Amino acid sequence: MSKVHNFSAGPCILPKEVLTKASEAVINFNNLDLSLIEISHRSKDFVEVMDWATSLVKELLNVPEGYSVIFLQGGASTQFLMVAYNLLTENGTGAYLNTGTWASKAIKEAEILGTVKVLASSEDKNFNYIPKGYSIPLDADYLHITSNNTIFGTQVKEFPECPVTLVCDMSSDIFSRKINVSDFGLIYAGAQKNMGPAGATMVIIKDEILGKVGRAIPSMLNYQIHIKKESMYNTPPVFAVYVSMLTLEWLKDVGGVEAIQKVNNAKAELIYGEIDRNPLFRGIVAEEDRSTMNATFVLEDESMNDAFNQALSDARINGLKGHRSVGGFRASMYNALPLESVQVLVDVMSNFRQ
Amino acid sequence: MSKVHNFSAGPCILPKEVLTKASEAVINFNNLDLSLIEISHRSKDFVEVMDWATSLVKELLNVPEGYSVIFLQGGASTQFLMVAYNLLTENGTGAYLNTGTWASKAIKEAEILGTVKVLASSEDKNFNYIPKGYSIPLDADYLHITSNNTIFGTQVKEFPECPVTLVCDMSSDIFSRKINVSDFGLIYAGAQKNMGPAGATMVIIKDEILGKVGRAIPSMLNYQIHIKKESMYNTPPVFAVYVSMLTLEWLKDVGGVEAIQKVNNAKAELIYGEIDRNPLFRGIVAEEDRSTMNATFVLEDESMNDAFNQALSDARINGLKGHRSVGGFRASMYNALPLESVQVLVDVMSNFRQ
Repeated sequence: MSKVHNFSAGPCILPKEVLTKASEAVINFNNLDLSLIEISHRSKDFVEVMDWATSLVKELLNVPEGYSVIFLQGGASTQFLMVAYNLLTENGTGAYLNTGTWASKAIKEAEILGTVKVLASSEDKNFNYIPKGYSIPLDADYLHITSNNTIFGTQVKEFPECPVTLVCDMSSDIFSRKINVSDFGLIYAGAQKNMGPAGATMVIIKDEILGKVGRAIPSMLNYQIHIKKESMYNTPPVFAVYVSMLTLEWLKDVGGVEAIQKVNNAKAELIYGEIDRNPLFRGIVAEEDRSTMNATFVLEDESMNDAFNQALSDARINGLKGHRSVGGFRASMYNALPLESVQVLVDVMSNFRQ
Repeated sequence: MSKVHNFSAGPCILPKEVLTKASEAVINFNNLDLSLIEISHRSKDFVEVMDWATSLVKELLNVPEGYSVIFLQGGASTQFLMVAYNLLTENGTGAYLNTGTWASKAIKEAEILGTVKVLASSEDKNFNYIPKGYSIPLDADYLHITSNNTIFGTQVKEFPECPVTLVCDMSSDIFSRKINVSDFGLIYAGAQKNMGPAGATMVIIKDEILGKVGRAIPSMLNYQIHIKKESMYNTPPVFAVYVSMLTLEWLKDVGGVEAIQKVNNAKAELIYGEIDRNPLFRGIVAEEDRSTMNATFVLEDESMNDAFNQALSDARINGLKGHRSVGGFRASMYNALPLESVQVLVDVMSNFRQ
């Protein structure tokens, strides 16, 4: 049987060698004759996993001195809340860029705790572009942006020059391209795209931005507590952290962020090339804002949807259905998706024209 | 090589057949040619996992009508906060029983949000007993208790007759004995003892107790949102929920809670019998409050600790070191630990005397 080409939007494809090692560790971890998931998180063997995962994040993203890296639970959705709890002062303002569903949710959670100002929004065109040219208030506590919008298929190509703390939700494009961590005060990402399975969230924080709000912060929402306890304030999501560690090892082995960025660019050129060339299809996002991670497109003639879905299914292409708020199709091409799978998809699109 | 006897306090031993199935699903889940951890949580295959896990909880614990079962992230530590957020009213009081480290943490988090009254505490004797005979204020919003105290080895044998909403942290003895769910307003448990791996938290809630506090509740901390979205408000911890489902299936197969309770009682009798019989050892908990899950004891002569540890190691007994706040030894005997392992430990203790 031919292999499945997994274009799932997330949880998404992981490297085969990562899955093999993860599967083995569930039976016998580090030759302990015990499963990874039945040992103490305080054991030497698991503490090493957490330390190594943290080190790999620092190495792969060139995290400078003065920043901490932690692994938490609760996904990006919990970060929407934690950002406001830890950074939004009583009389201050949290500035937000509204680029879609997840940005809107981040705004909603911050509004519970304080004053929010939305600097710009692309809601007028169903979030099919990234707003630019907005001005950032100098007295804002922070500016929150979403680097890649999984649902709509847009991506911030150049991060704004930001006079205040820049906070970025990178859940769906972390480790996919080079970033300059020192441009950011806080970066967070749910693991389940380019980093590992669902259940872990990684946060990179500039230490000096913390401890400046007056409010009492519940322990589980307090970045300073998790930093001090090295991601072990409570039992961490052992399996998700371990598989993230394996995925980061894999990324290092294939040449790191710079190397994977080239592959990601090649994959994006391949699919967007076909979308632009093939008169049956139309991209739905402003060209300059097209995401390298999630390519969204529709059939010009929607009555052909069923036939195209059949062609996808025949080629064992999985996960191409667009999100319900956009419709059409979405090809998610995270780090672990090989160029070969994109070629198979492009061939199906090309053949479908004939 | 003989097998390892895993007495870890948590994360802890899981049934071998659960580990085998979990390991297989990481490679190929439901014959999809895809890993469990690389498919959408909205796919039919995973929605069925969540539904089945929820149904098994309801079946195994006889959860009555009017209660919801959800799976969340963040461990019991996040529940300390969520209980107060959702149940502690602005002018009301949360009543707490302080039976150890985890109860103390629950109290601390609630104090951030409102008024807390500690009805009784066993701190005077380093938490080696369960306080009894306290009176419960009729105007309290709820009474919060911890059913089993992993660190100290105490367990509430009879739940108080409670005129207000009874909230119980059952992280370390859920599914180990019969309970009457209708006696409780809310039960929560981190998965990583009797239910599955770290990374999921199960909550059983009487629906009518919710929606009565005035405050705005952040989405991720709001039980009503998670109930409405059937544990899928955001991406759930897919692997941890799946392995919990497998463990609950295993429990059903071995006869359910009633059957496992008999085994747990037999294991407890075996170890406490030896502790009481063997003059080298002394139990450190009031006899009537001894936990069936975690048996704590010390050597009368501490200078023999190293020799005893060597004997444990020779018998491949793992995880018997007591928590640093108690010292000595702790035998954690969760559902998946076979009676045979306790017999091996008791034999080591008995032989050590000779």
